[in-house]
Amino acid sequence: MVTIVHKYGGTSVGSVEKIKNVAKKVAAVRAKGNKVVVIVSAMGHTTDELIDLMHQITKEPHPREYDMLVSTGEQVSAALLSLALQEISCPAISLTGGQAGVETEDIYRKGRIKNIKLKRIEQELKEGKVVIVTGFQGIDSKGDIITIGRGGSDTSAVAIAAALKADVCDIYTDVDGVYTTDPRIVTEAKKLKTISYEEMLELASLGAQVLHPRAVECAMVYGIKIHLRSSTKDIEGTYIREGNKMEVKKAVRGVALDKDIAKIGILKVPDKPGSAAKLFKALADAKINVDMIIQSVHSAGSQADMAFTVGKGDAIRALEITKNIAKAQKAEGAVCDTEVEKVSIVGTGMISQPGVAAKMFEALSSKKINIEMISTSEIKISCVVTAGQGKKAVAVLHKKFDLGK
Amino acid sequence: MVTIVHKYGGTSVGSVEKIKNVAKKVAAVRAKGNKVVVIVSAMGHTTDELIDLMHQITKEPHPREYDMLVSTGEQVSAALLSLALQEISCPAISLTGGQAGVETEDIYRKGRIKNIKLKRIEQELKEGKVVIVTGFQGIDSKGDIITIGRGGSDTSAVAIAAALKADVCDIYTDVDGVYTTDPRIVTEAKKLKTISYEEMLELASLGAQVLHPRAVECAMVYGIKIHLRSSTKDIEGTYIREGNKMEVKKAVRGVALDKDIAKIGILKVPDKPGSAAKLFKALADAKINVDMIIQSVHSAGSQADMAFTVGKGDAIRALEITKNIAKAQKAEGAVCDTEVEKVSIVGTGMISQPGVAAKMFEALSSKKINIEMISTSEIKISCVVTAGQGKKAVAVLHKKFDLGK
Repeated sequence: MVTIVHKYGGTSVGSVEKIKNVAKKVAAVRAKGNKVVVIVSAMGHTTDELIDLMHQITKEPHPREYDMLVSTGEQVSAALLSLALQEISCPAISLTGGQAGVETEDIYRKGRIKNIKLKRIEQELKEGKVVIVTGFQGIDSKGDIITIGRGGSDTSAVAIAAALKADVCDIYTDVDGVYTTDPRIVTEAKKLKTISYEEMLELASLGAQVLHPRAVECAMVYGIKIHLRSSTKDIEGTYIREGNKMEVKKAVRGVALDKDIAKIGILKVPDKPGSAAKLFKALADAKINVDMIIQSVHSAGSQADMAFTVGKGDAIRALEITKNIAKAQKAEGAVCDTEVEKVSIVGTGMISQPGVAAKMFEALSSKKINIEMISTSEIKISCVVTAGQGKKAVAVLHKKFDLGK
Repeated sequence: MVTIVHKYGGTSVGSVEKIKNVAKKVAAVRAKGNKVVVIVSAMGHTTDELIDLMHQITKEPHPREYDMLVSTGEQVSAALLSLALQEISCPAISLTGGQAGVETEDIYRKGRIKNIKLKRIEQELKEGKVVIVTGFQGIDSKGDIITIGRGGSDTSAVAIAAALKADVCDIYTDVDGVYTTDPRIVTEAKKLKTISYEEMLELASLGAQVLHPRAVECAMVYGIKIHLRSSTKDIEGTYIREGNKMEVKKAVRGVALDKDIAKIGILKVPDKPGSAAKLFKALADAKINVDMIIQSVHSAGSQADMAFTVGKGDAIRALEITKNIAKAQKAEGAVCDTEVEKVSIVGTGMISQPGVAAKMFEALSSKKINIEMISTSEIKISCVVTAGQGKKAVAVLHKKFDLGK
């Protein structure tokens, strides 16, 4: 008997009709003799509606009450899916995160999953039921409801799959797989049959908003095979799993575009040890996620320029902090540029194939696209370009690396 | 330091504006140095909307999933009220039934409250917070969510007040107290300053839909004083408490009208021992609540007619069951009349004042209102009359017993 974990996102359970369709698919999988656990998100815009209500009361909600409020969204969709399954004579039960044994850190709004006590889930599976678990939530040591932050339901699904040692974690979504790049930008974009955790991680981090990096990370740690697939079309999607050497024929597997970035520059910082540390400590204290960092030393050798990127939403706060640090360190000043985009190529094959970076820069230059910043990892190269040039950059890179074939 | 329990119904928390108003009132009571626990219902029509969604999926929901679904309504309003209190700098925390320690029987949709573990509520009160508890729900021994049936939030409030040994349980609602009869029927209807548990119990059972009988019963058992009052007007309402002999000057305290009844008759039942028992056992097995029962023996002595009343919603099922029993017992048949109403007078003073029934019948007869059935208890007399005559009956009785003075 095979244990399968399904995850359905908010769009997939966005209406009563859609919930009934999901029930049919789930019941069919159970009818084949599988044990099935389904993780659901809140219906469509439920979470946004709850947050709207909340914002009419307060702009700065206490995170505990925020969790208490928004966690109801998943509880509603879980109960409705359970009822829809029962209606077509498929035994089912819905469980809140707490009832399902999902234990998190004592941190509201972004507690990480610490442990999953499987007793209840296993008991219900043993009784032949489909077990539906509310995604995105668990409980802490006090029994308080904790939501687990962005990408929560994907992470819930993978964590439960890991705890159950499930054979596969099917993540149903509104796209039908992982593509070499965004098919809306490049029509030749090709769906990948498989992709390694590492590659998916880089793509997910880079704005290919298909699957949250936390979920991929969790799957990688526990070796859970993810099948990312369409909730409406009954076709194979993309398997995310352990990298397979045989398949790494191409150095580059995908191209990603991220428009949600801003560039902050700090100019002519006296080049003393610890000056960068002070800046990035201050940003970290303000919970601002910094992505790319570049430092260039002036020819004189005593002053450096630094630049880094953050999400657009953090740009103003990051600039403020950077200005204060600049003043304290007697730098010339700080500037912010939100008119930038980041284009990246990803592939585990890069490690063994030299010249990939050169090929990328060449391709961009052939289209007169100026590179403002570069950062590289073992399996990724990212370039910051001027806003509006990202699409063109993606297209030329997709062609250059033969991804459409 | 005084401990006060407030309960706000669905209408009172029906919008963001109303929730903000409730927060102001609650904060003011806390500011006077009181410990405050607030029990809330779901916002306005939330529960109905959830049930609507559910009915698009199934007409016969599994009660466990029903509870899982509808309990989210109270969780939303509790979290929003907590946020509204925090927004005006009043420390607050919302708790689900389970978090608040409300333990119920293992019966979905109508579990009674078995026990309240006060640890969490007391700890939060100690820290100076207003504690908001979701009404209408608790958890069973498995940790499943249990809703506690009709009148649930009132009962939650009284039970928590009892456990806390609270000084008073303020039930805020959309009427401003208990009246001698429905003011929409009789304009002279007078608000009562106090009423005994027993009287309130009879009035509540009789269709004066102000406060659920379960809540009154619970208050009576634990001696909790209830203050039933308006959520919009800042005036005294009606205190429901231990009967006070000094105040029982009038035999009759209130007149109630219940239109939600149907009369079932079973004709010429051979008068054997156990024939009534069989009928009412069958009705009980079908979970049909029977109210008044009358049996009249025919002059011959070997056959009896029986009649009883049920809620209109149960009429068809009750008639079916009665017909089957009639057939098995060789009775002549069974009939149903839904064109009836029940008018009742209530008052603890009746016990010591003879002639109250006669006075009632006389008043009805003076208006040519025919009485179809009569039932009496120590503090109540009910008469079934033809549909459409109830209002006239209430008016004449209200006048006859001087209730407007």
